[in-house]
Amino acid sequence: MSRKSKGINAERELIHLFWNTDTWSAIRAAGSGCSRYPSPDVLAGNSLRKLAIECKSSKDDNIYLEKEEINDLKEFGRRFGAEPWIGIRINSKEWFFLTLEDIKETESGYSVSLVLAKRKGLLFEELIR
Amino acid sequence: MSRKSKGINAERELIHLFWNTDTWSAIRAAGSGCSRYPSPDVLAGNSLRKLAIECKSSKDDNIYLEKEEINDLKEFGRRFGAEPWIGIRINSKEWFFLTLEDIKETESGYSVSLVLAKRKGLLFEELIR
Repeated sequence: MSRKSKGINAERELIHLFWNTDTWSAIRAAGSGCSRYPSPDVLAGNSLRKLAIECKSSKDDNIYLEKEEINDLKEFGRRFGAEPWIGIRINSKEWFFLTLEDIKETESGYSVSLVLAKRKGLLFEELIR
Repeated sequence: MSRKSKGINAERELIHLFWNTDTWSAIRAAGSGCSRYPSPDVLAGNSLRKLAIECKSSKDDNIYLEKEEINDLKEFGRRFGAEPWIGIRINSKEWFFLTLEDIKETESGYSVSLVLAKRKGLLFEELIR
């Protein structure tokens, strides 16, 4: 499976987790990588909260995010009225959710070690609580 | 251009209208027609309001909507906390936005005449006011 297909599968799985709750809903954004406007991978909401989520999956020790991805996520969140989150799926199973304060700025962008993701990240049940 | 491409182009144009304002943002939902969960064509928001929009374009005198499309739009709006709207684009130029109270129930679904859309529908500027 291509990297892109794996990414889309992970996003679909996340959509499923939200709809599996009693009160949340979620959609995947179309062509989030090629739209000229900021767009999160997944947008979830219930009557009280909206979450704009950039999704990353990895089997490596570190995940890298470009400065522009994070700026777009912030800008989208600010305009839409949604909380910006990074959703990290480790080894195709566990999800951890990080705020933008939790990720580490590097010279060229941002990085998150999986150790950090596991230590600081919220589980899905904690995210939606 | 295929009917699907025309539909996507209309949705992209609507996304553009929202981002062209000072405060609104919008995304197109991925594969809204084939997802197993309810999903509007376009989801727009600012810090105060969220709009779930089902888009239809037509050159004919009537637009038809299936019962399931409307039920899905209602269900999505209820869970996400978004106002359900029908966005109708007439002759590839003007947009009119109707609430679910404005559309006419038929035996097999719903229909909207373009005369009704023009009479009852809000213009884009009125929708976002």
